[in-house]
Amino acid sequence: MGVAASLTEAKPDEKAVRKEESALHALSAYLKEDMEACNRAIVARMQSPVPLIPQLGAHLVAAGGKRLRPLLTLASARLCGYQPSPEHQRHVALAACVEFIHTATLLHDDVVDESTLRRGLASANAVFGNKASVLVGDFLFARSFQLMTADGSLRVMAILSAASATIAEGEVLQMATQNDLSTPIEKYLEVIHGKTAALFAAACRVGAVVAERPEAEEQALEDYGTNLGMAFQLVDDALDYAADQQILGKTVGDDMREGKITLPVLAACRAGNEEDRAFWQRVIETGEQTDADLPHALELIARTGAIQTTLERATQYAEAAIAALSIFPESEIKTLLVETASYTVSRAH
Amino acid sequence: MGVAASLTEAKPDEKAVRKEESALHALSAYLKEDMEACNRAIVARMQSPVPLIPQLGAHLVAAGGKRLRPLLTLASARLCGYQPSPEHQRHVALAACVEFIHTATLLHDDVVDESTLRRGLASANAVFGNKASVLVGDFLFARSFQLMTADGSLRVMAILSAASATIAEGEVLQMATQNDLSTPIEKYLEVIHGKTAALFAAACRVGAVVAERPEAEEQALEDYGTNLGMAFQLVDDALDYAADQQILGKTVGDDMREGKITLPVLAACRAGNEEDRAFWQRVIETGEQTDADLPHALELIARTGAIQTTLERATQYAEAAIAALSIFPESEIKTLLVETASYTVSRAH
Repeated sequence: MGVAASLTEAKPDEKAVRKEESALHALSAYLKEDMEACNRAIVARMQSPVPLIPQLGAHLVAAGGKRLRPLLTLASARLCGYQPSPEHQRHVALAACVEFIHTATLLHDDVVDESTLRRGLASANAVFGNKASVLVGDFLFARSFQLMTADGSLRVMAILSAASATIAEGEVLQMATQNDLSTPIEKYLEVIHGKTAALFAAACRVGAVVAERPEAEEQALEDYGTNLGMAFQLVDDALDYAADQQILGKTVGDDMREGKITLPVLAACRAGNEEDRAFWQRVIETGEQTDADLPHALELIARTGAIQTTLERATQYAEAAIAALSIFPESEIKTLLVETASYTVSRAH
Repeated sequence: MGVAASLTEAKPDEKAVRKEESALHALSAYLKEDMEACNRAIVARMQSPVPLIPQLGAHLVAAGGKRLRPLLTLASARLCGYQPSPEHQRHVALAACVEFIHTATLLHDDVVDESTLRRGLASANAVFGNKASVLVGDFLFARSFQLMTADGSLRVMAILSAASATIAEGEVLQMATQNDLSTPIEKYLEVIHGKTAALFAAACRVGAVVAERPEAEEQALEDYGTNLGMAFQLVDDALDYAADQQILGKTVGDDMREGKITLPVLAACRAGNEEDRAFWQRVIETGEQTDADLPHALELIARTGAIQTTLERATQYAEAAIAALSIFPESEIKTLLVETASYTVSRAH
């Protein structure tokens, strides 16, 4: 089933979100033993003689999250036929490593964005303070490099350290575009490539590396990850102006309050009239906001079809992600990766 | 000349600081070409398509600093007889890598401590904001791992990634001891080992690794670095209650304002009477401070000999650093490393 079909079938209610969850659940279920080993590795490698580190770690583990990025590493390794031995579970250690990099960036993002909610629970900075979040983020980042060093592959290190630098560049670029409605859409796409797609791509590519597959398969998995990551972030940005807070576990309107430049805003602003543009300039560029602004923003976004514009882009990326897998023979894990891409988009419908 | 002799000779004025500077200048001068190559590598590897990153980088480079840690890597490599070729300058790339790790932690420290001054100039967070400092710190950290990956030695990666994790642990432990006068001196020493000595040790050890010297020389240089780092941080903590702001380039009393637990405070509190202890409890534990408190704190610290207590510890570490070099034959670079350890302590006299 293509993305377009799955989009048409999806209904604009909680069911769609459950559908995406079930695609991820199916992937998790298929990789159950690997994921359990990965979760054990995450808990084990978060230990430290400094008690606050595992305490904050436990808060993050309790908050759960989809563990999408480590799932991608595990799934990519299996897609490439990686056969671990009981002693050598490279894919598991590297999946944990990918999750550590992601968690470190989340901790720092929440400090930078002054967020109070993460995955429906109080964010780490809200509970433990900004200082602890910055420093434990640094610890997890360092620990991720220790995991890579233990794995011992220079190729893996090159991929993941480059992705880490690209993430930071994406975040800095996002900061530089904040409050700036003249940001070109290409620059917004560059931001989400850095902050999200680069790690998705690296997580996938690493799977092919541990399986020692040829460059073409590495590249195909990198392309899958890049496009999936772009689709994922576009949908996330759409949901910030559309989602039910209970389902999403984040506060609707957060991006607007922060003056963050995302496609729904750029599209609504470009498709709006002069009065609309004055509204967006006030709330996004000057940051002067009242309680009445969010409902009005949602109305403008609905009227201009900005969510649809955003999701169409997301659909294109999801289709490209699925196309990238074409070089692999059919298999259950391939089907699950295809469905993950489809449902990444359909969750917003 | 031993540390004790240099301490006796040193005078309690600006001259002593200039003397330490001249020990470092002598080391820098001896390693002039290496340091110039290292500075070029630092500037080159701070480049990014995201303009804010080299901008903030230029601010840091302009602020200067002693570049003590990269000097240690370069000096250690030369002490071990490392012979670079024009194409392979491993010691230079790794010295830049060490400075990137250090700079990343400085950027994050200044955010965590809300500092406004660094090396006598406005700190990066004061100029560019906390968000930029957190994110550019992450970028430099990632870039340091790219430099290690390019070097390609798993031993180097293991040493520097472990040091990075230890730094973060030290910083978290420091945060956990903040405002707590019951902190044992051993825990304070653990904090400064993590936040300072671990990277000094790693910077030195890496020099022996690139020269492919036996374990005993790696260990000797690690011991030199650890003890030098402990001495350096003890002196730094003493200067926070003693230095002329113009000379030090930092604000006297910063540590007290932050309720930071350092040896001068622990020693003054332990050696003081009941009234003194009540004073320290108010200013350090409750954080209630007035303008009159810093002069009174300096008086109590002087009366109880707390600076002297701190510097005696520093002297012991400096002597241990010098002793660790005994396995190396006499050479100009060895003499310079010995003098660096001596003057690290004498700068406070």
